[in-house]
Amino acid sequence: MDGFPYGGYAGKLLRVDLTTRTVHDEPLRADWAESFLGGRGLGARLLFAEVGPEVDPLRPDNKIIITNGPLTGTGTPGSARHITHTKSPLTGIYLNCVSGGHFGHQLKLAGYDSLIISGKADRPVYLWISDGKTEIKEANFVWGMDCERTQEFIKKDIDQPRASVSCIGPAGERKVMMAAVMNERRASARGGVGAVFGAKNLKAIAVHGTSEPRLADPDGFAKALEDLKKLHDRAAPVGVFTGYGSATLIHNISKVGGFPTRNWQTGVLEGVEKIFPESWASKYRIGSKACPGCPVSCGHVVVVTEGPYAGAMTEGPEYETLYSLGGAVGNTCAEAIIAGDEICDRFGIDTIEAGIAIAFAMECYQRGILTKSDTGGLELTWGNHEVMVELLKQIAFKRDFGGFVSQGVKRMSDELGQNTASFAMQVKGLAMGGYDPRAVKGIGIGMAHAARGGCHHNATYTMYEETEFPGANPLATEGKPKLLADLIHGRMSLDLIPICIFHWPIIRHFPVQPQLICSATGMNMTAAKFYEIGERVHNLERAYNARMGYTRKDDRLPDRLLKEAMPEGPAKGETWPMDLLLDGFYEVCGWDKRSGVPTRQKLDSLGLEDIAEELSRLGRLP
Amino acid sequence: MDGFPYGGYAGKLLRVDLTTRTVHDEPLRADWAESFLGGRGLGARLLFAEVGPEVDPLRPDNKIIITNGPLTGTGTPGSARHITHTKSPLTGIYLNCVSGGHFGHQLKLAGYDSLIISGKADRPVYLWISDGKTEIKEANFVWGMDCERTQEFIKKDIDQPRASVSCIGPAGERKVMMAAVMNERRASARGGVGAVFGAKNLKAIAVHGTSEPRLADPDGFAKALEDLKKLHDRAAPVGVFTGYGSATLIHNISKVGGFPTRNWQTGVLEGVEKIFPESWASKYRIGSKACPGCPVSCGHVVVVTEGPYAGAMTEGPEYETLYSLGGAVGNTCAEAIIAGDEICDRFGIDTIEAGIAIAFAMECYQRGILTKSDTGGLELTWGNHEVMVELLKQIAFKRDFGGFVSQGVKRMSDELGQNTASFAMQVKGLAMGGYDPRAVKGIGIGMAHAARGGCHHNATYTMYEETEFPGANPLATEGKPKLLADLIHGRMSLDLIPICIFHWPIIRHFPVQPQLICSATGMNMTAAKFYEIGERVHNLERAYNARMGYTRKDDRLPDRLLKEAMPEGPAKGETWPMDLLLDGFYEVCGWDKRSGVPTRQKLDSLGLEDIAEELSRLGRLP
Repeated sequence: MDGFPYGGYAGKLLRVDLTTRTVHDEPLRADWAESFLGGRGLGARLLFAEVGPEVDPLRPDNKIIITNGPLTGTGTPGSARHITHTKSPLTGIYLNCVSGGHFGHQLKLAGYDSLIISGKADRPVYLWISDGKTEIKEANFVWGMDCERTQEFIKKDIDQPRASVSCIGPAGERKVMMAAVMNERRASARGGVGAVFGAKNLKAIAVHGTSEPRLADPDGFAKALEDLKKLHDRAAPVGVFTGYGSATLIHNISKVGGFPTRNWQTGVLEGVEKIFPESWASKYRIGSKACPGCPVSCGHVVVVTEGPYAGAMTEGPEYETLYSLGGAVGNTCAEAIIAGDEICDRFGIDTIEAGIAIAFAMECYQRGILTKSDTGGLELTWGNHEVMVELLKQIAFKRDFGGFVSQGVKRMSDELGQNTASFAMQVKGLAMGGYDPRAVKGIGIGMAHAARGGCHHNATYTMYEETEFPGANPLATEGKPKLLADLIHGRMSLDLIPICIFHWPIIRHFPVQPQLICSATGMNMTAAKFYEIGERVHNLERAYNARMGYTRKDDRLPDRLLKEAMPEGPAKGETWPMDLLLDGFYEVCGWDKRSGVPTRQKLDSLGLEDIAEELSRLGRLP
Repeated sequence: MDGFPYGGYAGKLLRVDLTTRTVHDEPLRADWAESFLGGRGLGARLLFAEVGPEVDPLRPDNKIIITNGPLTGTGTPGSARHITHTKSPLTGIYLNCVSGGHFGHQLKLAGYDSLIISGKADRPVYLWISDGKTEIKEANFVWGMDCERTQEFIKKDIDQPRASVSCIGPAGERKVMMAAVMNERRASARGGVGAVFGAKNLKAIAVHGTSEPRLADPDGFAKALEDLKKLHDRAAPVGVFTGYGSATLIHNISKVGGFPTRNWQTGVLEGVEKIFPESWASKYRIGSKACPGCPVSCGHVVVVTEGPYAGAMTEGPEYETLYSLGGAVGNTCAEAIIAGDEICDRFGIDTIEAGIAIAFAMECYQRGILTKSDTGGLELTWGNHEVMVELLKQIAFKRDFGGFVSQGVKRMSDELGQNTASFAMQVKGLAMGGYDPRAVKGIGIGMAHAARGGCHHNATYTMYEETEFPGANPLATEGKPKLLADLIHGRMSLDLIPICIFHWPIIRHFPVQPQLICSATGMNMTAAKFYEIGERVHNLERAYNARMGYTRKDDRLPDRLLKEAMPEGPAKGETWPMDLLLDGFYEVCGWDKRSGVPTRQKLDSLGLEDIAEELSRLGRLP
C-alpha cells in the first residue's frame, strides 16, 4: 500500500489486457473507496465506468472486474470473499457473482483490491498473479479439463500448491450461456460469467500472495474482532448456516408452501422431506469445509455411497440446488441432486439456471410443445432424474438436446414462442431463485427488481425475515416494501467490506461492521453511513441497467406468479400483487414510480451526481 | 542414515501396527541390502520372512510392505518408484505392485527404505509420515471419497500440499477383490492390494520428507548420472514410451495377431486402429506428465471433449487398459476406454482384472451361461461399452451384477462351473496381461510361471524382444526359455534399485546400473552380480508360493490357449506348447522339472540356504 490513505486496502488495481498481453498496476481511487468501500460497491462503480451500454458481453470489450474488500486478508471471519462483475451474456445486463473460498483472500495478499481483465487472448491462457508479479501463461494443457482438475494441474504448473485458482470448465470454454467460474469448489455461477472467461480464451486465474494489509488501528481492530468473536460464540453454534449451509432454508420455504415444484406449478412438493438436508446428510455427510478463518463452516462434504449415483461427491448441495435440481423438476431423489450438483461444479455450470431450464423443458414436454423427437429420445417427465443428470452433462458440453437447453430459460422460451413466456421462470433473462413470491410476498420485490435479474440474493434474507421471526406473516403485503429496502441497504454492507451473508443472522443487530471498518481503515464509519453506502450501491446497480433503457416494465415476474393462483398448501389461492408492491417499493426507494428509475434527486442525495448526469445525457432519467 | 554402511539408503524401516496403534523405526539389515538391494528384492525378502503360508490376506496378520530402493531420492531418472508387497486376497499368493509418482521418493526423503504395516485399525485411519515422525490419524472425513479427492482432502488436513498420498477408493473400502491403491494418478493395481488396505481400515498413507540420502561417492555418482543422461539424449527422443507410454505396444501386438479380442477368442480386433493411441491422442491429448526427474514422461493426459463420454479424463490409458477395456470386450470406442479408465482410477480398481472379468461375463452371456435375469437387465454383448462403463461403476461399489463380477475372473468361473474355466483368462487367480501367447510364444512362459499370477510385467519386454528386434520370430519356441530367463533376471535389477522399466529400452545394453549403484551405495557391484541378484529374487518369489504348495501344475495357462487354435491372422492355427516351453524354462532356471520348484542346489548357489531349509522343513523342496 504505497501511500493509500486507508488501511485494509492494498491501494492498487491490477489491469490485464489479454489482446495486447499487457499488464499494469493502477492506484485505487481513494474517493471511490470512501463512497463504495469495496466488493460489490467498488465493482459496480468500475463496471459502470468501464463497460458501457454498447458493449457486447461476449466480445473483447466486455471486462471481468473482480474485487475483494477492505476486510479481506485481515483475518475477519467471513471476509474471504470476492465479487466478479461483468456484463452478462445470459441477460445482457448488470451481473455480479459473489464467491467464497481462498481467491479473494489471496488476491489481497498478492497486493490487489481489484483485478480488471479486458480484451481477448489469441489462444487459451491463464493468469498467474504472485505477490505483485503477473504472467499470462499458456493454458492448452488444461483446456477441456474439468474445474477440479484444472485447479490441480495449474497449481502444479506454477509449483505453488497454496495458490487459489479460479477457472472455467468445458462449459465456459464453449461459451455456454449458463457457464460458471469455480474456485476451489465455490462457484461464481450466475449469468454466464464463465462464458465471458471462455470468450476471452481465459481458462483460469491463479493467485498467491504473502503481504497482509496494513491496519489503521491494529489494537482497535483486535478489539473489534474480539467483540465479533463473542457474537459468534453467543450464536448456537455459530448461526443457522453451520452444518448444512443454505440447505436448511428448505424448511422455511416448505413450511409456508412456497417451495417451487414442477416448474412452479405448485409450492408443495410431495415427499420433500426426502431431500431435507437431515435426510441425505445423515447418510452421506462425511465432513465440513470452511473458508479461511470462518467459524460458520457452511460447506458440507457429502459422498453418495450406494445406488446408481454412488461415488458422487459435492460440497453442497446448497438450498438453491435442492430447489433447481429437486423441487423444480419434481425430483425427490437426493442422490440425483448430489450427482447433478457435482456435474455442475465439475464442468462449470450454474445449478439454478440449469435446473430451471430443464424444468421449463419438462413443462413444455408435459404440454406437448416439446416431444421425444425434439429431445433426442429423452423422456422429460417430472422427477425423471436420470434424464436430468444426462441433460446436465449435455448442457455442459453444449451437445444434443442439451445444446438447446444450455441457452437458458429465456432464450428457450423466445425460440419456442407459444405463450411459453408465462411459465418461463425468469426475470430479465435470469432464472429465478427458489422462493415462490405467491407464498412469501416480499421476496417477489427482490426478484422483480434486482439488477442482475431473478436473483435469489436479494430474496433469501427477506424470506428468512418473513418466515422465521416472531409475528412474521409471509402473505402480508403491508410493510414489505420497507422491509425489503431496509434489508437490501443494510445487508449490502456485507457485500462491500465484504463479510459473507451467512454471517448476517449472527451480526444483524450489532454494529460490528462500523467498528471493524473504522479500526481497519481509519475511516469514520457509522451504521447510518453504512446504510447510505448500501443505498448508494443499490441505486448505482439500478442505474447501470437504466442507462441501457431498463425500466419498470422489466421488473416483471412471469405471468404464472401474477395470474395463476397457488393451487394448494398454506398459500393456496394466492397470486403476487405486482403493482401494489412495486409502487410501494419504488416509493420507499425514492425512484420514479412510472419508470422505476432513480430520480435525479435521489441520485444526487447519494452523491451520485455524475451518474445522474450521464443518465440524463442519454435521456434515461425520469 | 545412522551408521548404515551403504549410501543411497535411509538405513531404516518404519513399522506401524494398526491394532495396537504403535509405530517404531527399525534398522535395515545390511546383509539384505547386499543380497536383495531394495525394491522388489527387499520387499520379497521381508514378505517371505513376515507373511507366512498360514496368513489370511484379509485378516489383520497380513502385512503391507512398501519399499523403495537405493537410487530413490538420488535424482536418478526413473527412480521415483515404490513397490508394495502383500499376500493377495484375489489370488491368495505372492503379490507385488510397482508404482511411480512421488510416493516412493517422498518415503525415502522422509527417512525410510521401507514401510511395514500390520494389524487392523478399529475405525478408518490414515498414516501421516513426515520426516521421521508418524501419526495414525482419523479418516472418517475421506471415507467414501474417490482417490483423487481423498488425496486432495488429506493434503489439506495435514496442511502439506507437497506430500504424496497413496490411498484407496470406495472399492478398497468395500474390500473389492480387484481394488487398487492410487498415488497421484498412478496405480498399485493388481491382486486386490486395495482390499488389504480396506481390511485394515487404512484409507491412505501420506508421506513427506526433506532429507536426501547420503551418497558414497558423490562425484562418481554425478559422472554416472551424466553418462545416463547421454544415453537418454541418444534415444529418440527418450525411448518408445515417451508420449504414449505403454499404449504404443498395441502396434507390436496387433502386428503379430496377438491382441486378445472378445475374451481371447481371437487375436485380431477389427477396427483396432480406432483405439491406437495416435487416433485418440490426436483428438484428446492435452499434455504429458512425468514422475519427478524422469525424461521419459510416459504419462499422457487425455480429456474427451465430445460425445456421451465428454469430460472423461485420464493420465492414460496404458496398453493393458486398451486391451482390457478395448479388445477383450470387443470395444473399439476409445472414448469409452478413457471413461472406463477414469472410473477405475477414481474409485480404485484394477483395469485389467475388471475388463477381463467383464469379458468373461460377456462370453458367458454369449454362451447363455449368464442371461439378462442374472445381469440385472444388462445386455452383455461384445462391444457394448455403455454396459462396460456401467459395470465398472457397479464393480467399484460392489453392487448389483457388478458385485458378482467384482470377485474377479477365477471366482466367477468357480461359481459358475460348466467348464467355464477353459475360457476364464487367468493364471493362479490373476487375470492375464494382454498378449496372446499363441502369437508370441515366450510371453506365455512369463504369464504361466510368474509369482503373482497371469502377470503382464514378466511378459511385456519379452513381447518387445520377440516382435520388435531384427530377426525376431514371435512364433518360434526355440531359445525362448533362455530369452525369458535372461530378461527376467537382467531386467529385475530395475525393480530393485529401482528404475522404471520404461527406461529399459534406453539402458538395456549399457552397464549404467552397476555404475550408479557402486557410486551411490559404495557396494562393489558388477553386471554379473546384478544378474545374480535378479536371479536370486526371481527364485525367492518362486519359493514364496512353493512354500504354500504351489508347483508346476499351477503354472498353467487356460485351456483356450493350449487347445483352441488361433482362428485368424498371422498366428492362425497356433496354440501354446506348454510342456515344451515350461520344460525348457525350468531347465534354464535350474528348477526341478517335475515340480517346477527351485532345487536346493539352485537356492544354495544363490545364497538362499535359509529359504531352501524352510522349504525342506515343510516338505516343499523337490
